[in-house]
Amino acid sequence: MVDKNLTPLELRKMCRTGEFAKPTSGYCPGHAQANLIILPKEDAYDFLLFAQRNPKACPVLEVTEVGSREIKYMASDCDVATDFPMYRIYKDGVMVEETTDVSKYWQDDFVAFIIGCSFSFESEMIDAGIEIRHNTEGRNVPMYMTNIECLPAGKFSGKMVVSMRPIPPKQVVKTVTVTATLPKVHGSPIHIGDPAAIGIKDINNPEFGDSVTINPGEVTVFWPCGVTPQSIVMNSKPKFAITHAPGYMLVLDVKNVDLKE
Amino acid sequence: MVDKNLTPLELRKMCRTGEFAKPTSGYCPGHAQANLIILPKEDAYDFLLFAQRNPKACPVLEVTEVGSREIKYMASDCDVATDFPMYRIYKDGVMVEETTDVSKYWQDDFVAFIIGCSFSFESEMIDAGIEIRHNTEGRNVPMYMTNIECLPAGKFSGKMVVSMRPIPPKQVVKTVTVTATLPKVHGSPIHIGDPAAIGIKDINNPEFGDSVTINPGEVTVFWPCGVTPQSIVMNSKPKFAITHAPGYMLVLDVKNVDLKE
Repeated sequence: MVDKNLTPLELRKMCRTGEFAKPTSGYCPGHAQANLIILPKEDAYDFLLFAQRNPKACPVLEVTEVGSREIKYMASDCDVATDFPMYRIYKDGVMVEETTDVSKYWQDDFVAFIIGCSFSFESEMIDAGIEIRHNTEGRNVPMYMTNIECLPAGKFSGKMVVSMRPIPPKQVVKTVTVTATLPKVHGSPIHIGDPAAIGIKDINNPEFGDSVTINPGEVTVFWPCGVTPQSIVMNSKPKFAITHAPGYMLVLDVKNVDLKE
Repeated sequence: MVDKNLTPLELRKMCRTGEFAKPTSGYCPGHAQANLIILPKEDAYDFLLFAQRNPKACPVLEVTEVGSREIKYMASDCDVATDFPMYRIYKDGVMVEETTDVSKYWQDDFVAFIIGCSFSFESEMIDAGIEIRHNTEGRNVPMYMTNIECLPAGKFSGKMVVSMRPIPPKQVVKTVTVTATLPKVHGSPIHIGDPAAIGIKDINNPEFGDSVTINPGEVTVFWPCGVTPQSIVMNSKPKFAITHAPGYMLVLDVKNVDLKE
């Protein structure tokens, strides 16, 4: 059992050695967590523009220098090629491998985009007395493909992915106000209520992560998700891309409070 | 005397014909206003990354398609080459011309960055009972070079420019809370109080715009300013850049309320 109160660096070092390869929800509470997409420089402008046009799904926290594996602003002693618990390799839009280390794939024209993750604000929701169901049940958060078209940019287009947390009706407003303070990790929900309204066919069969119990009367609340770049990669089929595995996030040194400005 | 309650399109059309060539503070209240920098595509990634790293000074509202003069998301029937009241042409970091129309300079590799302006939230400050001194005095807002280094990106680096509004002590907190709701047009102030603390030598001699009366006891409140890209151009000396003239902004169709999400 890994201590959930490890420092972010301690947890990253366990990812680096392959010792930790699990979803990161609940770890290092108070610290921000991040999604990943790595692309060659030739695709970097289009992706950065895509993120600018779709800030709810892709709030960019940091972009690495071309060819560098180092995170400079959001953490120190942080290697983007080893410090996520799990990566996915996409070739021509198809996922071909999951791995805990992408060092062997590294190219000197790679740019890494570090994108805010909604796991960040879960500790604030818990502080506010809101249960995080997938935490309680020891599962990964459920994530769904939607029918929400992102604004396209250059070669990139596709539909938004969302994460879902079931919330008791009495706590829905508090859920919105607490998460709205953190737009850099997705902020307020994109949808509250009927999953079908955003094109989700079966709430018990998420495309990414695990399903969770939804108690009678609970409201399904949806946030834009940093797995959206993977939906975009599957749709737009760039030659090569590396992402994190959904739910297997980079834990940053930076705290939620530092992102509130 | 131009009616301050023209629609944004009506005002833009007067800019397009050269009929309106004044600072836009106070015009079309409730609508967002924007700064500009136009660069060739080869410099666009570095600038977009600069904006990502310096979101308080450079909150990007929209980026045009390469070669296109059309604003698509923030306004309709809007030409970036004619619809600002005044432009500045920079060659090798030096301002060489002011003009009301940059059509003749247009190249098919140009990208325009539309950046939020603090004029946007002035109508909300006025609604909250806060006097906007440069409005009252019929002047341009005072803007200053500071000693605040922006985070560099690629070829771009330099110091932040700020705008200043003098505020009675009793209204300083309200000033922060009202403006903090609009991060896409600079949001909360970057500094409250002593100008010298951010490297401003003479509050009565702004580098851009006009000086305004500061009544005894009033607090000088400073916001990051979208003239920062011009400070960056002067420092980094790209071959060619077009900007707006400080205070001579593009008035957008989009309203402040649409930017609060």
